[in-house]
Amino acid sequence: MSRIVEPKILAGFMELLPEKQMMMNELMETIRKNFETFGFAPLDTPIIELSEVLLAKAGGETEKQIYQFNKGDTDLSLRFDLTVPLARYVAQHQNDLTFPFKRYQIGKVYRGERPQKGRFREFYQCDIDIIGRDKLNIMHDAEIPSVIYNILTQLGMKDFTISISNRQILKGFFEELGLEEKSTDILRGVDKIAKIGKENVKADLLSLEIPADKAEKILDFITIDGTNAKVIQNLESLGIQNESFQTGLTELKDVIHGMEQLEIPEKNYKIDLSIARGLDYYTGTIYETTLNQHKEIGSICSGGRYENLASYYTDAKLPGVGISIGLTRLFDQFQNRGFFKENGQRTPAEVLVLPMDENMDLAFRYASKLRAEKIPTEVFMEKAKFSKKMAYANKVGTPIVAIIGEDERATNSVVLKDMKKGEQQTLPFADAVSFAVKFHAKQSDNRPKLIDMQKPLSPSKD
Amino acid sequence: MSRIVEPKILAGFMELLPEKQMMMNELMETIRKNFETFGFAPLDTPIIELSEVLLAKAGGETEKQIYQFNKGDTDLSLRFDLTVPLARYVAQHQNDLTFPFKRYQIGKVYRGERPQKGRFREFYQCDIDIIGRDKLNIMHDAEIPSVIYNILTQLGMKDFTISISNRQILKGFFEELGLEEKSTDILRGVDKIAKIGKENVKADLLSLEIPADKAEKILDFITIDGTNAKVIQNLESLGIQNESFQTGLTELKDVIHGMEQLEIPEKNYKIDLSIARGLDYYTGTIYETTLNQHKEIGSICSGGRYENLASYYTDAKLPGVGISIGLTRLFDQFQNRGFFKENGQRTPAEVLVLPMDENMDLAFRYASKLRAEKIPTEVFMEKAKFSKKMAYANKVGTPIVAIIGEDERATNSVVLKDMKKGEQQTLPFADAVSFAVKFHAKQSDNRPKLIDMQKPLSPSKD
Repeated sequence: MSRIVEPKILAGFMELLPEKQMMMNELMETIRKNFETFGFAPLDTPIIELSEVLLAKAGGETEKQIYQFNKGDTDLSLRFDLTVPLARYVAQHQNDLTFPFKRYQIGKVYRGERPQKGRFREFYQCDIDIIGRDKLNIMHDAEIPSVIYNILTQLGMKDFTISISNRQILKGFFEELGLEEKSTDILRGVDKIAKIGKENVKADLLSLEIPADKAEKILDFITIDGTNAKVIQNLESLGIQNESFQTGLTELKDVIHGMEQLEIPEKNYKIDLSIARGLDYYTGTIYETTLNQHKEIGSICSGGRYENLASYYTDAKLPGVGISIGLTRLFDQFQNRGFFKENGQRTPAEVLVLPMDENMDLAFRYASKLRAEKIPTEVFMEKAKFSKKMAYANKVGTPIVAIIGEDERATNSVVLKDMKKGEQQTLPFADAVSFAVKFHAKQSDNRPKLIDMQKPLSPSKD
Repeated sequence: MSRIVEPKILAGFMELLPEKQMMMNELMETIRKNFETFGFAPLDTPIIELSEVLLAKAGGETEKQIYQFNKGDTDLSLRFDLTVPLARYVAQHQNDLTFPFKRYQIGKVYRGERPQKGRFREFYQCDIDIIGRDKLNIMHDAEIPSVIYNILTQLGMKDFTISISNRQILKGFFEELGLEEKSTDILRGVDKIAKIGKENVKADLLSLEIPADKAEKILDFITIDGTNAKVIQNLESLGIQNESFQTGLTELKDVIHGMEQLEIPEKNYKIDLSIARGLDYYTGTIYETTLNQHKEIGSICSGGRYENLASYYTDAKLPGVGISIGLTRLFDQFQNRGFFKENGQRTPAEVLVLPMDENMDLAFRYASKLRAEKIPTEVFMEKAKFSKKMAYANKVGTPIVAIIGEDERATNSVVLKDMKKGEQQTLPFADAVSFAVKFHAKQSDNRPKLIDMQKPLSPSKD
């Protein structure tokens, strides 16, 4: 072979070494398990769809980013989110599904954006949605923040805020000001307040030809602050009677009450009337989630309530509520900030069996017993000096090394070394199995949290 | 909205309803867990790669099936297997990896085949490979069948055979007959014996201008039968001395010995000299796995040993051994034959909380407690008659239903109904939590196997 092709991947695509991949998988697994704990059923849709179906609704910026191509005579596109495939799926299979339909999907989506630091062209989204037929009880909106809370705390995060609002409240407020026609533009400006500050939002509002006194009122409104009870009291005291406002306020109160019953600590959520999620898509409750010490990351988990999921595919009315986590970007951001606790393991194996010579008999029997107990176990089989074998053990970072040589074979025993403590002991075969079983159980019970944001930060690379 | 686009997906793409998707996920999870139990580290490579990199080696039939397209000026392709990306990955990251490098990858691959029953254009492959640098001990080849054995038995299969051979043995045998130049063509013919029968293979061999006596010898050789010990004895007694044959035989003996130490029951594996895996790729051990009562499915898990993984990307010599499971096809075949035990569940939830009225307080508190115990729990929140609520419970198939009404709220208790047994009891809140915890633990311990091939077959749709 003379021609060597340089092995490389495309810019904007994430690929990890084993140590990092294992952390990524743990992150994903924590999300997945929580989705299932809340009763969401798994869904897996094709990555390639017919362009006429996938792009029924798309337009503008989104469409430009699509990976679209022909195979034979067929016009194909790669999915760019998990919401459009969900809409298509629910419309297509509505007679076979049970409503409310609760599904989660974790999968890769594709957007051919200009590559830049922190932006990916292939990235995982983790979505949950609850879809009703004709209607969907507002209390579902209270469960969504409980999912977010459980995921983040199980990962090891504490200092985060789930911001919650309701678009009907803002809509009603704009109506009250006689600005309903400008509400989309106002929302777009208001949504930026955390990024650009109050003064710049005010300038934006004035540029929309909103009178200064009304601009002030809008700013006062979206910055209403205090405990959730206080904010609600404040909203009630405004005396706005139109239907949008009243509906939104009632919904928000119900949702906040539900969140209390679900025992989400109040320090982790907050009514914030300035969040608007930019999109026209959402019609009721909206969510954003930020890390209090790292607001620069932006929202790590957002979503909301929408009136109709699949109007492009069916006449059935399908209201829903959901959230999405941009997992690839999140992993990248956390990694750049050194949030992950690294344990130095490059393998899922907890036990590495090191035979001293080339006889694998006892090593294989021991490994086989541990695997039958579901203990991840690797056998090192290469011919090498013992020092080289130990160097391998140190590199892959298994917590336990089992050494087996001629003596051990003669006595049917195993030398077990705890690599962290540096302790070593020789145990009869059966005891060596029990030792590993106990060690494994302890590992599973005392699994350290994946994320530790308290430790000294490595310099951010953003 | 007046224009409705018909919601549909492309032919050759699999999409499942929740009940089936949960079975697919369980199948995948069993495979994944076993891969990790054997110490394979996870890998996730991009689905889109540069065509010049991905297709460095491809040609002929494969290339025609590739989804290849341009985005801007870049020529892109979707991966068509997980082996080429592995080769690229190992070559690219060789200085950061520890060898032997054991990785698994479970992911979708794409082949634009003509769609036909049982063929998919998007399908999951589940691969494991062990890659050495310069060399890789033969005993790794003994561990691979242990992975297959563990996966299949954990899924509930018993009556299967892992066929094992070594290409050096066949190569040496053909050398002995003076037919080494025709060995690739012969292998191609020989590999079909299970499908087309002895007589047709003989005709094929004669059409290659192989003398009739040698064709007979080949047929006798590849149909050598008996216990593994007998087959090895038989091979030794042939007195063939060339290096290929001797190397292959020694390797095969080592591998069989290792498989014994790994405690794979002998009824589940068998030396079979007729398997050849068609490809030039494999150079030593080869594996195929068939269901004894369903040979028509073909091999459900195949692979082997190769001399050099990544010669197109690096001068480093990277020998390896691995197997691949075509998961999507396997699921489809099993499903068509009714092999899956269906439990009627359309949700991961084990407990469905049914509030009698619109007050969710106690329902939410109970659900929250169960979720803290990692018990998948759903709350039904829609306004409906009680009979409709129970109809929903029956449809989604949760084993436990927790009913909460005014009385329960007044007494802080929960009515629990075991849907299978039809038994119902009212328990104080704390006891209702304990009940669910115990039920969940029992469910996890006594999880029925996914597959039951003994039950009456539903008519095959193939």
